[in-house]
Amino acid sequence: MISPTKAASRRAKLKADLINAAERTIEREGLRALRARDLATEVGCAVGAIYNAVADLDELIFAVNARTLAALERSFTAAGADRQPADGATAQFVRLALAYTDFAAANGPRWRALFGHQLPAGREIPAPYMADQLRLFSYVEVPLQTLLPAITPKRRTLLARSLFSAVHGIVVLGLEEKLQSIPLPVLREQVTFLVKAMAKGLPQAAEK
Amino acid sequence: MISPTKAASRRAKLKADLINAAERTIEREGLRALRARDLATEVGCAVGAIYNAVADLDELIFAVNARTLAALERSFTAAGADRQPADGATAQFVRLALAYTDFAAANGPRWRALFGHQLPAGREIPAPYMADQLRLFSYVEVPLQTLLPAITPKRRTLLARSLFSAVHGIVVLGLEEKLQSIPLPVLREQVTFLVKAMAKGLPQAAEK
Repeated sequence: MISPTKAASRRAKLKADLINAAERTIEREGLRALRARDLATEVGCAVGAIYNAVADLDELIFAVNARTLAALERSFTAAGADRQPADGATAQFVRLALAYTDFAAANGPRWRALFGHQLPAGREIPAPYMADQLRLFSYVEVPLQTLLPAITPKRRTLLARSLFSAVHGIVVLGLEEKLQSIPLPVLREQVTFLVKAMAKGLPQAAEK
Repeated sequence: MISPTKAASRRAKLKADLINAAERTIEREGLRALRARDLATEVGCAVGAIYNAVADLDELIFAVNARTLAALERSFTAAGADRQPADGATAQFVRLALAYTDFAAANGPRWRALFGHQLPAGREIPAPYMADQLRLFSYVEVPLQTLLPAITPKRRTLLARSLFSAVHGIVVLGLEEKLQSIPLPVLREQVTFLVKAMAKGLPQAAEK
């Protein structure tokens, strides 16, 4: 008989192995390829043992997606998106948008898993995961504050999300193979051009 | 024994019934709820008979999505998006973007099926369907021509797609329940504000 401490540490090890295996599967083949049977084979446990370590596959997907969000956030901070820029708000918008574009292009299936994860009815999003997601939008608030100093914090938060979403849209439909995907250098040009247009037009649109 | 003509007309009838049943399922419960067994029950045929009428479920999804694209296109033309506007390019951009927003909000699962349909490897998109998709982007070219008369047609086509995609992004992340969805009136305000900003900023961004 094994001690409760040992059992807990085995469960923790199994959970870590399962998250790693799920991450590799998603990276290689996307969210839809994730199956309990394959994960069990990969980590060398029985299918039923998975549910001693995690509640369901959704828990694994959240864990993998949390890593992807963290990696995306590192690419934002590497682009200097967390501090007031010396070269102006527009340049910072563009850097942030290009960091997002490059991340999406380099991490296709992992990036898509962030949006493709549909929760079963009644399953809630873990609060820390939600906070991670919303924090990513907040990077856009830094240049927005420079560009539109007069708006309320609430409005700035909402607008940051919408600007992030606009860039997300350009990238998601730009990389969509079903629509003849746009080559990355051309997509980067499009993102740059439209983000510059938004940055220039925002103060004027706010005046009315 | 039934005649070949009769057999063909039965097949056509079965196909039409299957498309209608698939449309109802997608409308009610989304793409993921689509199952051959349920469709067969709904139209009153054997599961195997489905494959006498269509090659696979993807063919049904394309047929439903083609109807959704046609409905979306009607909402664009109803918004006057197919002709030069009397009230200027910016107003037309906004009308088009709000028509898209309202369509998405009113047709959630059907609209999501346009983007959620992942093709099996090797399955090609039917050319007419691709043409339908790309034609929707082209509505944005009408106000773009007014706003940026000097750009080449090729660049205008690309930019129209990117602008469409930016609005798509605002709407898709705005309506996303996982991210605390934005109430429709607030979302319409955000779309209006950002589209105005882009329309105002585009000529300035093009100058450099």
